[in-house]
Amino acid sequence: MTQRFGFQLHATDGRARTGVISTPRGEIRTPAFMPVGTAATVKAMLPESVRATGADILLGNTYHLMLRPTAERIARLGGLHKFMNWDRPILTDSGGFQVMSLASLRKLTEEGVRFSSHVDGSKHMLSPERSMEIQRLLGSDIVMCFDECPALPATEDEVAKSMRLSMRWAQRSRDAFGDRPGHALFGIMQGGVTPELREESAEALKAIGFDGYAVGGLAVGEGQEAMFGVLDYAPGYLPEDKPRYLMGVGKPDDIVGAVERGIDMMDCVLPSRSGRTGQAWTRRGQVNIKNARHQDDPRPLDENCTCPACRSYSRAYLHHVFRAGEMISGMLLTWHNLHYYQELMQGLRDAIAEGRLAAFVADFHAQRGAGDIEPL
Amino acid sequence: MTQRFGFQLHATDGRARTGVISTPRGEIRTPAFMPVGTAATVKAMLPESVRATGADILLGNTYHLMLRPTAERIARLGGLHKFMNWDRPILTDSGGFQVMSLASLRKLTEEGVRFSSHVDGSKHMLSPERSMEIQRLLGSDIVMCFDECPALPATEDEVAKSMRLSMRWAQRSRDAFGDRPGHALFGIMQGGVTPELREESAEALKAIGFDGYAVGGLAVGEGQEAMFGVLDYAPGYLPEDKPRYLMGVGKPDDIVGAVERGIDMMDCVLPSRSGRTGQAWTRRGQVNIKNARHQDDPRPLDENCTCPACRSYSRAYLHHVFRAGEMISGMLLTWHNLHYYQELMQGLRDAIAEGRLAAFVADFHAQRGAGDIEPL
Repeated sequence: MTQRFGFQLHATDGRARTGVISTPRGEIRTPAFMPVGTAATVKAMLPESVRATGADILLGNTYHLMLRPTAERIARLGGLHKFMNWDRPILTDSGGFQVMSLASLRKLTEEGVRFSSHVDGSKHMLSPERSMEIQRLLGSDIVMCFDECPALPATEDEVAKSMRLSMRWAQRSRDAFGDRPGHALFGIMQGGVTPELREESAEALKAIGFDGYAVGGLAVGEGQEAMFGVLDYAPGYLPEDKPRYLMGVGKPDDIVGAVERGIDMMDCVLPSRSGRTGQAWTRRGQVNIKNARHQDDPRPLDENCTCPACRSYSRAYLHHVFRAGEMISGMLLTWHNLHYYQELMQGLRDAIAEGRLAAFVADFHAQRGAGDIEPL
Repeated sequence: MTQRFGFQLHATDGRARTGVISTPRGEIRTPAFMPVGTAATVKAMLPESVRATGADILLGNTYHLMLRPTAERIARLGGLHKFMNWDRPILTDSGGFQVMSLASLRKLTEEGVRFSSHVDGSKHMLSPERSMEIQRLLGSDIVMCFDECPALPATEDEVAKSMRLSMRWAQRSRDAFGDRPGHALFGIMQGGVTPELREESAEALKAIGFDGYAVGGLAVGEGQEAMFGVLDYAPGYLPEDKPRYLMGVGKPDDIVGAVERGIDMMDCVLPSRSGRTGQAWTRRGQVNIKNARHQDDPRPLDENCTCPACRSYSRAYLHHVFRAGEMISGMLLTWHNLHYYQELMQGLRDAIAEGRLAAFVADFHAQRGAGDIEPL
């Protein structure tokens, strides 16, 4: 096992790329989808089940973990990997996005963000230095720079100002991170939907130098068209030889479009959150399992899926346990959704490696267009 | 695999017995603890995980399943085993106890019980004939007679009247059940805490003839002393060569005391329900994982337990995920509790087989007396 962080690009197809990120805790096949383990658990899943879906890496949330059970406590207990029983790579976000969306009494200054916890009202500070400290205490393998993401709608001026603050914070993050062999620090490009600002941000980050680069400030409600608009050019400003991470994305068709545009890593709560609310993602589209049309249906969610929910249970059963409020509903649907997402990623990786991404994408859209399933 | 229902007694130690119940769907080692799968799921567990704890048989609830998703629907979908992905034996209760504790607008007559559903207010009837029909539609391997269990406190007269009604219903259950090779029908002894009534009930049931006999009307709030008082004599009224089932029991020390008194089968929601409320059962007693004393404790719930919760997680983690309201809390603690219960049953079976039950029971009580765990 390698003791260094690295990225090897194996093949490209158009702008799409496939490769492997190496870390001391194992390899991450790219394009990679990272399930979200907010509070040291991927909700409704055991970690061995998450691994069984094909996940190489999880995402942990700095904001949630710093508040409960606290980064210091996790460090005393041996770090996040041991704490949550996941020995493969973990990426942690910086807390910057969630502090702006979840915390109360926020005060943003050049130094950072002061805020009150949404859990118990206690007062905290997040800054580049504190975010680096927390992510080090957690033992994160891939650490994200502390950045600011302006709420939409924002004027170009506001976006520019915010981006330049994030670039100063990126330098402070780099300085505070120091030299930690085997651990990576990723910069986050900002700049909204303005190419000049995106380019300015990318140049600032490259001048500092990072192990990977995220495209930030997307998937915040701007819509798929605007997101793809940025992804049509922004990844091109980033180094070819480093992984590119699109934060908080997304639906299956968002993922496919992002991969087509040169993205290597993504994360999203959607497959796990949907699983708990009775929404399943399949090759043939989204299935709302609470719909009464499933109540007598002996067929699986997806007859071609090999996940435990599809191998062993009917739509009628999944409908019943959802309606009855049983935990197995969230457990099975989350497993299915994560399995589907990872299968999609494997399909994308194989298609890129074999130079047939266009056909794969056409088939992906055609299957979804056919509708979920024929009536009984 | 046998195609008939049968019971082979392998060894006794005092009044305690160990043996095997044979069914076409597999063997049940006795004394047996049956996890409860109320609504076609053992809450917070996948069936393969329930099996991994050592369970040979599950219990399903007629009352819940007849209301949602309905017995007719389950029958159309291939029966309860297929529906819930459990191919081993299932025992179903008759609905008699739960209709009296959960339904509204109940009207009890010689015919049966009319009631309104607690789910949607719809009107239903449960009678010996309807209960047999529902349990047949579900495909239950061990069917329970429809009986009435009087609410406590009750006068001896009320208990006698209720018991005699249950005995008439037992005959009607036997008649309605008919001849179903490979499926068993169990009678239920009533009679409260009055030996003469218990004996009268046992004689009535034996005259009808059943494949097994339950001791009913206990574990309804009368306390352990009163329950053991009845178990000191009541099992002796039942045939030696048929399984004896104590319904709705119980805590680990209830189980040990019941097995000492000649009980072969038990069921209880306690291990699964406790798991969801942060209560763990261990060799050394009950652990309330939400207690702050666990928040920095790197030790497992029980260092000698081999369940997934104890193998891979600290008390600090279990405390954290409980406090954070995460589903993995109920998943891990339920698994632990069911594992502990099944390990206890295996210990009892081995001790009886080897004629050392008294020493096993003394050790069981001594370990619990020592307290949960030493302070850090």
